[in-house]
Amino acid sequence: MNTLIDMASDLGVWLSRELEVVSSVMSSHLENKHPEVNKICAELAAYKGKMLRPSLLLLSWRAVSDSTTVPTSIQKSAAVVELIHLATLVHDDVLDEADLRRGTQTLNNLRGNEAAVMLGDYLLSSAFHLCSTIKCVELNILLGEVTNTLCSGELIQLSHRNNVDLDIDSYYQIIHDKTASLIEASCEMGGVLGGGDDKEVSVLKDFGALIGTAFQIKDDLLDLLAKRKDIGKPAGRDLEKGKLTLPVIDMLAKNPSLKSGVRLAMLNNDQPALHAMLDSTGSIAGAFDEVGRLVDRATAGIKSNFSNNSSNQLCKLAEQLKLPL
Amino acid sequence: MNTLIDMASDLGVWLSRELEVVSSVMSSHLENKHPEVNKICAELAAYKGKMLRPSLLLLSWRAVSDSTTVPTSIQKSAAVVELIHLATLVHDDVLDEADLRRGTQTLNNLRGNEAAVMLGDYLLSSAFHLCSTIKCVELNILLGEVTNTLCSGELIQLSHRNNVDLDIDSYYQIIHDKTASLIEASCEMGGVLGGGDDKEVSVLKDFGALIGTAFQIKDDLLDLLAKRKDIGKPAGRDLEKGKLTLPVIDMLAKNPSLKSGVRLAMLNNDQPALHAMLDSTGSIAGAFDEVGRLVDRATAGIKSNFSNNSSNQLCKLAEQLKLPL
Repeated sequence: MNTLIDMASDLGVWLSRELEVVSSVMSSHLENKHPEVNKICAELAAYKGKMLRPSLLLLSWRAVSDSTTVPTSIQKSAAVVELIHLATLVHDDVLDEADLRRGTQTLNNLRGNEAAVMLGDYLLSSAFHLCSTIKCVELNILLGEVTNTLCSGELIQLSHRNNVDLDIDSYYQIIHDKTASLIEASCEMGGVLGGGDDKEVSVLKDFGALIGTAFQIKDDLLDLLAKRKDIGKPAGRDLEKGKLTLPVIDMLAKNPSLKSGVRLAMLNNDQPALHAMLDSTGSIAGAFDEVGRLVDRATAGIKSNFSNNSSNQLCKLAEQLKLPL
Repeated sequence: MNTLIDMASDLGVWLSRELEVVSSVMSSHLENKHPEVNKICAELAAYKGKMLRPSLLLLSWRAVSDSTTVPTSIQKSAAVVELIHLATLVHDDVLDEADLRRGTQTLNNLRGNEAAVMLGDYLLSSAFHLCSTIKCVELNILLGEVTNTLCSGELIQLSHRNNVDLDIDSYYQIIHDKTASLIEASCEMGGVLGGGDDKEVSVLKDFGALIGTAFQIKDDLLDLLAKRKDIGKPAGRDLEKGKLTLPVIDMLAKNPSLKSGVRLAMLNNDQPALHAMLDSTGSIAGAFDEVGRLVDRATAGIKSNFSNNSSNQLCKLAEQLKLPL
């Protein structure tokens, strides 16, 4: 199921088994006394991915604790970050009016926007409820801060819709808040619950923030360059939704005269026009290079502070972001 | 501002002042470092109502503690329940495609569904975050349970859209879950944090559940009977959205042969046809009677167990539900 890690290794076997436990914690926590609710939750199966956030939390925990017996608090926390992630996917699909995810119908498409909005709320609420049962006040506060950040990132992004003047710093702030913050928190939670010292926790947190940022830049490149049939979800949605991403922002910083052309391409959802502009610059290659630099900074931080199987695996996992689309 | 209570009384002055504090706790907690987020939150002003839930929490607290100096935990809890309520209003307006609330434009109408979905998430997340800062694990668990119940109530209601076979027990379950549960929890939290014993907390909780149920039945009657211009929000939406409410369910239980007529009225959003059927039965009057019975049960419970200014005020507040539309 999990393709993030070499499954033949001892660590891979361990991670795979632990992710199964996390999945079952999620399922049993979502189980409701009303069959109508269970029926709609069952449709979430199509949203199940590689479980990146629980994997990072588990590996970060093991990198500092060097234990293999995973406590309930870690299993629950890993389920919590995945539930939050699922909630954002369900609501993102409503926002994006997406009809497909991983090649199957989205919940909003299958059940309507109303059920998708409510199911997202139910997932968010279930995540907070599950987190509360860990009975660690600081963890609840941290989770609340992270979800506030996720939402404010999305709100800021919406406020910049069709804004061709969006500057690079605001872009980095948006992708940190809407995407990297949860990946950052997953690594941080693993470090804190594993008993890591301040320095170790800070290194893991920075690692999460850096690869989370790289992950979003790469996801934006996928939207720009991939075909719908290849990625099992709509492509070219960023232009259609008036979202400026790194290659476009970089191109406009270097060639401000192209702003009116980009504005027109957004207005008409004219993907070929955008690509014609981008092809005349090195901005797409520049964005791939930026992913590489972020990954290198992330792994360098880990390597200077840790040296064990789990920390090596965190680095390998980050390196995968450098692979071509 | 508050019309729930006689403002000239000492208790009225106290409640009014405390609700101002609760409002400022909410505003300062929602304050974000990003001006874009503050700008959209400022538009929530139009959603501000009578603050029923914080009022019930404060009065329930005072009914058991008989103190007047409100601790921070109560001020924060009162802000938490109102934030949850606001989140449900914002998402409900998206679900209902409502354009007006309290006579002004809804957020989804003003900013689009995307911003409204995200703002609702931000409010939900802020409520959990604020609750966490009270540092009482049990309160967080209770809040998580309540929001799970709110969401599952809405999901169950959606699963029964256009279902003319919806039975009365399922209807009561739905309105308990989607509406009464938060009102119930507001009274319960006030009782628990005020140091009430198990019996006192249970009486307050039951009071909340009963008036919460009465409140939703009356709100459904308002949708059925009022005019848009009189209530400052769309009317007749329940029929349009395929939601069966008490008068219709009662009518169909007594006259099952009318099911096909109701189905047709829903299909064509034919309000006059529905009213023609209802007018031939006593089901609308029966629903008003049910509101009265629920209020009587609620106040009887309070009167047998409490006798102070705050408990009397809880009863007066419940009695207001008996007033004509």
